[in-house]
Amino acid sequence: MDLFYFTGTMQKGILLVPARGEPLFFVEKGTIRAQRESPYPVLPLSRGSLAIKELLRMANITTGRWGMELDCLPYNLYARWRNELKGEIVDVSPIIKRLRMIKSNFELNAIRESGRIVAHVFRRAKDIIEEGMTELEVAALLEYEGRKKGHQGALRIRGFNQEMDNICVTQGLSGTYPSFTEAPIFGIGLFPAFPHGASWNRIKKHLPIVIDYGGGYEGYTTDETRVYVIDKMDETFKRPYEIAREIIEDTASFAKEGTPVRELYSRAAKKVEKERLADYFMGYGEGKVSFLGHGIGLEIDELPVITEKNNEVLQEGMVFAFEPKFVIPEKGVVGIEVDFIVRKGGLERVTEIPIDIIYL
Amino acid sequence: MDLFYFTGTMQKGILLVPARGEPLFFVEKGTIRAQRESPYPVLPLSRGSLAIKELLRMANITTGRWGMELDCLPYNLYARWRNELKGEIVDVSPIIKRLRMIKSNFELNAIRESGRIVAHVFRRAKDIIEEGMTELEVAALLEYEGRKKGHQGALRIRGFNQEMDNICVTQGLSGTYPSFTEAPIFGIGLFPAFPHGASWNRIKKHLPIVIDYGGGYEGYTTDETRVYVIDKMDETFKRPYEIAREIIEDTASFAKEGTPVRELYSRAAKKVEKERLADYFMGYGEGKVSFLGHGIGLEIDELPVITEKNNEVLQEGMVFAFEPKFVIPEKGVVGIEVDFIVRKGGLERVTEIPIDIIYL
Repeated sequence: MDLFYFTGTMQKGILLVPARGEPLFFVEKGTIRAQRESPYPVLPLSRGSLAIKELLRMANITTGRWGMELDCLPYNLYARWRNELKGEIVDVSPIIKRLRMIKSNFELNAIRESGRIVAHVFRRAKDIIEEGMTELEVAALLEYEGRKKGHQGALRIRGFNQEMDNICVTQGLSGTYPSFTEAPIFGIGLFPAFPHGASWNRIKKHLPIVIDYGGGYEGYTTDETRVYVIDKMDETFKRPYEIAREIIEDTASFAKEGTPVRELYSRAAKKVEKERLADYFMGYGEGKVSFLGHGIGLEIDELPVITEKNNEVLQEGMVFAFEPKFVIPEKGVVGIEVDFIVRKGGLERVTEIPIDIIYL
Repeated sequence: MDLFYFTGTMQKGILLVPARGEPLFFVEKGTIRAQRESPYPVLPLSRGSLAIKELLRMANITTGRWGMELDCLPYNLYARWRNELKGEIVDVSPIIKRLRMIKSNFELNAIRESGRIVAHVFRRAKDIIEEGMTELEVAALLEYEGRKKGHQGALRIRGFNQEMDNICVTQGLSGTYPSFTEAPIFGIGLFPAFPHGASWNRIKKHLPIVIDYGGGYEGYTTDETRVYVIDKMDETFKRPYEIAREIIEDTASFAKEGTPVRELYSRAAKKVEKERLADYFMGYGEGKVSFLGHGIGLEIDELPVITEKNNEVLQEGMVFAFEPKFVIPEKGVVGIEVDFIVRKGGLERVTEIPIDIIYL
């Protein structure tokens, strides 16, 4: 994704950014699209084992200190470069992630477009969900609704061995299990080989139906959650839902450029503790996650991460998903998630859809 | 996926297989599901930076030669282990990939189940496709059809920076562009940030509509392609389609356990050359791929890879997608793909659906 971020094209290649002089964009495959999509002149690169040497020869660079994305780059690929290069190889992922943390207007518009898909899907959910349908049926129909509006079809996640569904429809017990992906509520999925997302469980009355859906447009991800209930909601979930709502409303009213990120966490945590809901907040037991929100952009796990320990302050152009959620063991789940764009004077919501429970 | 392959669960953990003694399965998160899903006793592992040391202490292993999946493992994770371990770290991916190449009966049944989703989707396509629809609309509807039949929602691919759509619907020019994923025909997608899969192009008469769809059930992937045509097919594509069909029929009739893999490639290539179609076979120009098929299983890029240079012979229990395809620049694409299970006496088709062109 970093290559796309810097070049504007996903075609197969390598961007070499020297300390002095212009970046060199080598493309191995897809040169026609790369030329059309990228502002950089495209340098075609032959495929195969000599590609690296050829690249270095063409760039007339044979030594120096090299930066690569060592959080993503598989060891074998690293080793191949290691053998060809003189000089140290260092991890530039943290720098790139910080660059990508602040979104341009182009990016904000793509995120808003992505949010329009989310809004459409949440509106359609009201008409689609019926008692007795499986979580899978609801998910399949809503995925279709998003896709026909131009959803790119998948969301990208950077973390190693993490996976991200476009949609997770979950209710009751199926939402209470921990997931290998770092998310407070992620569904149990259809089978052990795909243990996240919607399951075969049938939708019942009274329990919150939690729908977590991510838009995807021009590569940009959004990520929001709403709660649907058939008939009246089970008492267990009323206070947790109200606290989630209060946390979002409170955050929307006080946070702005300059607010310490950890304050978003600590104010929420304080409310939760006061209500004696801390055990259930952001997961239960080993399923608990340490964040209350996460940056979104080309990937769904970007900076800033909203945690207790993040010493960053909010900056204009940051975009983050904010998701107070509760997992109540043996019972079910409830929670809300909205996406915020940080502005000088406050937070801007990416979608306009209300956060109220939708009663069916 | 290797962890799932060996343990039966996708929960977050580490499997340590010592040279002597029983494997040790450490689980960091999702212990309840891991216990339920895996035959191995689950050893809970605390999260955080001391996890590695704790693991080694519990296993009473402090030295030796360590095997890890260095084709996948990001460098930073490798480096973290490197600092904690004494002894050499070697790449065991090639051995694991060879183990996974031969499927058990459990796996074959999951693959057949996955194939039933594919068959359903190809049958539904006949009723769904209409002139004037966008490729995206067709893809969205067919994805929905597969998903409601229990498709797991995504396909997994092992190769670094490769991506795989569940479905690619493509016609005419939109199919002719190379992709960063190693596939002969992969669509142009909706925007530069997602340059594969269905596009906004509208379905026309006469040009082949190529639908490449992958089933996914219990983690197991299938991968087949059929051609749909509204009205009569443009002359350009008739011989290429016939050659694709002949290649599949020829392969189905001669290949069996013991057949050299490269013979599948060379017999096909010979037919293609005789017809003077070599330039268009398996991609055009820089978009050409070197394989005519690939193993399928938990991932879509497994062994064996059907190439000119593969010195392997077919073995019972191998499963591969076989995809003679043609890319005709400035015109369009055509091709067929079927999945074969290798048996002692011959090849078994995963789905029973015919490979004829479906006229609409």
